[in-house]
Amino acid sequence: MNFSSDNAYGAAPEIVQAMAAAGISPEPSYGEDQFTKRLSSRLAEIFEHEVAVFPVSTGTAANALSLATLCPPHGAVFCHAESHIVMDECAATEFLGGGLRLVALPGAHGKVAPAAIEAALPSFRRGVHSSLPSAVSLTQATEYGTVYTPVEVAAVTAAARKAGMAVHMDGARFANALCHLGCHPADITWRAGVDVLCFGATKNGACGAEAVIFFDRAKVRDFEYRRKRSGHLLSKMRFASAQLLAYLESDLWLHHASRANALAAQLAAGLAAVPGVKLAQPVEANEIFVYLPEALANRLRSDGAAFYDWEPPAAGRVLARLVTSFATPETAIADFLARIRPT
Amino acid sequence: MNFSSDNAYGAAPEIVQAMAAAGISPEPSYGEDQFTKRLSSRLAEIFEHEVAVFPVSTGTAANALSLATLCPPHGAVFCHAESHIVMDECAATEFLGGGLRLVALPGAHGKVAPAAIEAALPSFRRGVHSSLPSAVSLTQATEYGTVYTPVEVAAVTAAARKAGMAVHMDGARFANALCHLGCHPADITWRAGVDVLCFGATKNGACGAEAVIFFDRAKVRDFEYRRKRSGHLLSKMRFASAQLLAYLESDLWLHHASRANALAAQLAAGLAAVPGVKLAQPVEANEIFVYLPEALANRLRSDGAAFYDWEPPAAGRVLARLVTSFATPETAIADFLARIRPT
Amino acid sequence: MNFSSDNAYGAAPEIVQAMAAAGISPEPSYGEDQFTKRLSSRLAEIFEHEVAVFPVSTGTAANALSLATLCPPHGAVFCHAESHIVMDECAATEFLGGGLRLVALPGAHGKVAPAAIEAALPSFRRGVHSSLPSAVSLTQATEYGTVYTPVEVAAVTAAARKAGMAVHMDGARFANALCHLGCHPADITWRAGVDVLCFGATKNGACGAEAVIFFDRAKVRDFEYRRKRSGHLLSKMRFASAQLLAYLESDLWLHHASRANALAAQLAAGLAAVPGVKLAQPVEANEIFVYLPEALANRLRSDGAAFYDWEPPAAGRVLARLVTSFATPETAIADFLARIRPT
Amino acid sequence: MNFSSDNAYGAAPEIVQAMAAAGISPEPSYGEDQFTKRLSSRLAEIFEHEVAVFPVSTGTAANALSLATLCPPHGAVFCHAESHIVMDECAATEFLGGGLRLVALPGAHGKVAPAAIEAALPSFRRGVHSSLPSAVSLTQATEYGTVYTPVEVAAVTAAARKAGMAVHMDGARFANALCHLGCHPADITWRAGVDVLCFGATKNGACGAEAVIFFDRAKVRDFEYRRKRSGHLLSKMRFASAQLLAYLESDLWLHHASRANALAAQLAAGLAAVPGVKLAQPVEANEIFVYLPEALANRLRSDGAAFYDWEPPAAGRVLARLVTSFATPETAIADFLARIRPT
Repeated sequence: MNFSSDNAYGAAPEIVQAMAAAGISPEPSYGEDQFTKRLSSRLAEIFEHEVAVFPVSTGTAANALSLATLCPPHGAVFCHAESHIVMDECAATEFLGGGLRLVALPGAHGKVAPAAIEAALPSFRRGVHSSLPSAVSLTQATEYGTVYTPVEVAAVTAAARKAGMAVHMDGARFANALCHLGCHPADITWRAGVDVLCFGATKNGACGAEAVIFFDRAKVRDFEYRRKRSGHLLSKMRFASAQLLAYLESDLWLHHASRANALAAQLAAGLAAVPGVKLAQPVEANEIFVYLPEALANRLRSDGAAFYDWEPPAAGRVLARLVTSFATPETAIADFLARIRPT
Repeated sequence: MNFSSDNAYGAAPEIVQAMAAAGISPEPSYGEDQFTKRLSSRLAEIFEHEVAVFPVSTGTAANALSLATLCPPHGAVFCHAESHIVMDECAATEFLGGGLRLVALPGAHGKVAPAAIEAALPSFRRGVHSSLPSAVSLTQATEYGTVYTPVEVAAVTAAARKAGMAVHMDGARFANALCHLGCHPADITWRAGVDVLCFGATKNGACGAEAVIFFDRAKVRDFEYRRKRSGHLLSKMRFASAQLLAYLESDLWLHHASRANALAAQLAAGLAAVPGVKLAQPVEANEIFVYLPEALANRLRSDGAAFYDWEPPAAGRVLARLVTSFATPETAIADFLARIRPT
Repeated sequence: MNFSSDNAYGAAPEIVQAMAAAGISPEPSYGEDQFTKRLSSRLAEIFEHEVAVFPVSTGTAANALSLATLCPPHGAVFCHAESHIVMDECAATEFLGGGLRLVALPGAHGKVAPAAIEAALPSFRRGVHSSLPSAVSLTQATEYGTVYTPVEVAAVTAAARKAGMAVHMDGARFANALCHLGCHPADITWRAGVDVLCFGATKNGACGAEAVIFFDRAKVRDFEYRRKRSGHLLSKMRFASAQLLAYLESDLWLHHASRANALAAQLAAGLAAVPGVKLAQPVEANEIFVYLPEALANRLRSDGAAFYDWEPPAAGRVLARLVTSFATPETAIADFLARIRPT
Repeated sequence: MNFSSDNAYGAAPEIVQAMAAAGISPEPSYGEDQFTKRLSSRLAEIFEHEVAVFPVSTGTAANALSLATLCPPHGAVFCHAESHIVMDECAATEFLGGGLRLVALPGAHGKVAPAAIEAALPSFRRGVHSSLPSAVSLTQATEYGTVYTPVEVAAVTAAARKAGMAVHMDGARFANALCHLGCHPADITWRAGVDVLCFGATKNGACGAEAVIFFDRAKVRDFEYRRKRSGHLLSKMRFASAQLLAYLESDLWLHHASRANALAAQLAAGLAAVPGVKLAQPVEANEIFVYLPEALANRLRSDGAAFYDWEPPAAGRVLARLVTSFATPETAIADFLARIRPT
């Protein structure tokens, strides 16, 4: 009953096998290998667009390096107050971006809304005295497990564009969002105005591999220098690319994500039926935010369930985050629900 | 006949298998897993000392983050003019170190000598007007494939200590140096005065894994924050640690390194016997620096040999670097030598 | 009728004369001169405490360098959402602090309250994933022209201390706050728990001179390196110190500030009496925040009055900021009030 | 007999008077004032070219901010090994430049030669693994008190241009160089290929004012943001600009520099005539590098002479640096020479 995070589970066998198959024989290093080249082609196909693809080993690196590339060091990044770049990356974007500023916006369900962007802009009208609004960052699926529709993404990117800002998407759970929507990958990225996507695989079955995808080669600018200078250029890049290729092969990424989403839905349905338990957010991807009576939360933990307290307990209840993954056993759901039902 | 670099070859099967075995079942993320814990114990055993161990995915990250930790941002790092941190990492140490300064010292055979440290110090005597000499960085084996003896390491660290400087060792080819010396790992590290070792595995058979090893826990300071803020904290760290564990298991690391060293020695012996060919550096690890007539170099390349021109061709000859690895086939040596012999 | 800012006015004659008197004859450079030494003694006397004093030429430098010294690069600075470091310094603190994070807190009248600090802390409990709460920054007088009482300062510093955070005070208008309170300088600084004060003189009559004052020498750490490395170590420091000495001589600083405060009070009283005009903040120092009907604001501007629109006009009214200074002519107040009265 | 540095002397009366005259009445702040505007016009006239002018308060700020603007953070700046940016600014350029790299070149008489640039370039041919050679920095007059001729400047800028590098001139002693050459300011700046000049006034009679001068507005890029973010945007900029205006008025700058140069020549001539004393560098501006017997150096110091030991004493002699300034009394020269002559 481990619902602590999607990175608690290990790697899919298909992915580790692909690393083994990437083999021992010589390949050009630093990304000139055949795997990285095939990865670019495969992603171009999936996204129905030319792409410039750069594998890195963590999501924090992907986010911080791409934002540092989109923004000047005097830039400001508008993002949701609960986004990973604000809450979980220890100011990596500020550091790798040369001291830039994140601007934390409020927004229901973890989503940035066009109105929030517009409301924040007037504070930045004083020339060199203010940071320059340079990028908007969206998280898809959001930190609250909700999903922007294509129309919502397009509305945000339109507001960004109007203000001269680029658009970054943190796609650590991109596959989960896509499965929920059932649309084309393009529909929530370049076609909706996104400039760069941090395409996550680690949370959804890889050992450690994320792809930074630029949809406009001109925006790549000095990204490759930034990746090197921060220690993120992998010498044997074939092993990151092989993971990503296997992830995309036979739609493994989508199978994984649908499975995780389905388990979340099942868990959410079970939870919603329990008196005194209340879902805090719509469950659209693979995360459940739920208010549990503190006594119940404690009992579940002593029974071996693992989940994360999103907020410190208050008023006798806990806001718990439960995450399902590609590898969560179905029995974990059943067990958990069995224990939660009132006797 | 690929002698271009030791990172041209892939990964050892034992290492990829260990990643597969690290599995899919839940483990705490971010380094709290059992693999990372076992890795620490294993390294403490190998180094006969308490250690604080931090796996990262690249050597550049290992070097830059450990130096950034040893030095204040106003610090200076003394290192060889041909060292990797000076020549091959695009100023990553300066960047991740908050603008610190590398001081490139001359030195025969790629080695920093105590005299070079002493000669450089007087330039840094002007208080806040000068950078503060804060660390000496050694590369073991050096960029020229030569190896510091324990006595040589101790002499450098004594000079560093006298000047109040910490000591960093770039051990991207540490195993190769160790095999050449036949000493204990401790003899060329903490016992000889080294504070932090960047213990390389990638060049010697891993997919992408290096361990930053501190021999004094007090020197770790804010390293963990630095690792996170630069995007180098791996969520599923088990997969880096599993690589390193397999690397150390049954002395795989030493088998690999001895093999690479032996092939280099064989290749060097063959080269030395050819008229007009001249070794430029002693061959002590797995790198050969050799002057080749330009015509010969060109012919070898057209025959399919891959190696690196250390300097642009001049005066009809090329300074070639040839690197052997754990996976270089013996036939590559034989083939290469067969083609090099005058007919 | 220039109420645009207190830095619109020039310098007091006493201050420029002191610069002239600092003369042409040789003095040690970089702060070893007699003027800088006398400045330290004078400030120790005024603050009734040992001090380490560092003159710099701008308030932004004073704030950013002192915060960078108090905080590690992975630190977070808690401060008011409307503070100068958040709104007016283009992320200088983030830049000079090596990528640290400002956390913008809400708070009535531009003041940080202990409760706001406590409410923000739980977001930073995730070890290396979160920035480390390292300093609280207060602005005295605040950006809204209000003043923390000694009791209020002490309450904030107690909350900071409890969370292991240092306390910084942006005192660009410190003299104005002090005159309002009528207390000892010590009462709102070290005696109330402040670690470092950026003591402003520029806005209150100097050409360009601010003193960073540490009340605990141990907290100075690497400040002097930081000042040098950012280009803020003045070679002929005597000229900054001479300004500050003249500023403190015969209580010039307090005369200036009382005058500015008195003019503000006079202006505020006049404004408050006008129907349709509404003070937005208590007027305690030398700034007035007032809602003016848009038509009135426009008319005043066309009559030659200068003031700053704090927010873009909305709903037919303007939130205007009017600032009085040591050199604002009394006639400017009379003229302005004459034009504002309904006919 | 103070020859320790040209910043040991204070400020010229004309310059402090101009600050007084800049007055108390309102002016727009942050550089929109009439003084700064007039300064730009005056410099355009003097340099016979359009200019973008930015006053700052220190030479370190001028150098570091302009180089940070000319170079990307992954850039390398080629400069003389003895230049101020290498030896005396505590890596300010690396810090404010976001971690860029200085490349210290050898060169007779403190000058960078085209051949040294060409010799250094091949080390930087490895794409993202190497820093990108982005700017050449010249010091005019050099740290050794020698002066580049217009032809020499043009030769260096041609080599820079060929390598795609911009050209920066550290002109802390620009006036002294100009007086030595007797040419037009344009002849050793834009007309000879210089992109940006850090035009010094502090060492030559100002309180603390330097002008960063861009000869091509397109190269200004984000300089204004960088100035602000590093705390170098002066709110009451009129006082820096007034200093620079007075400095340029009636050719005060040239009178000062000629006087300092003449005193240096006189001192050098006297020194050269003394047996056992040997000039180490041609004396072309206001600095003298001279080998003195150690006993003589000690005696002079005990007689009250102040000068700087460029190197630690060795082999019984001292390499002394003596600097003359606009305000050095003629009697100091006579006194010094009287004491140096063998009796």
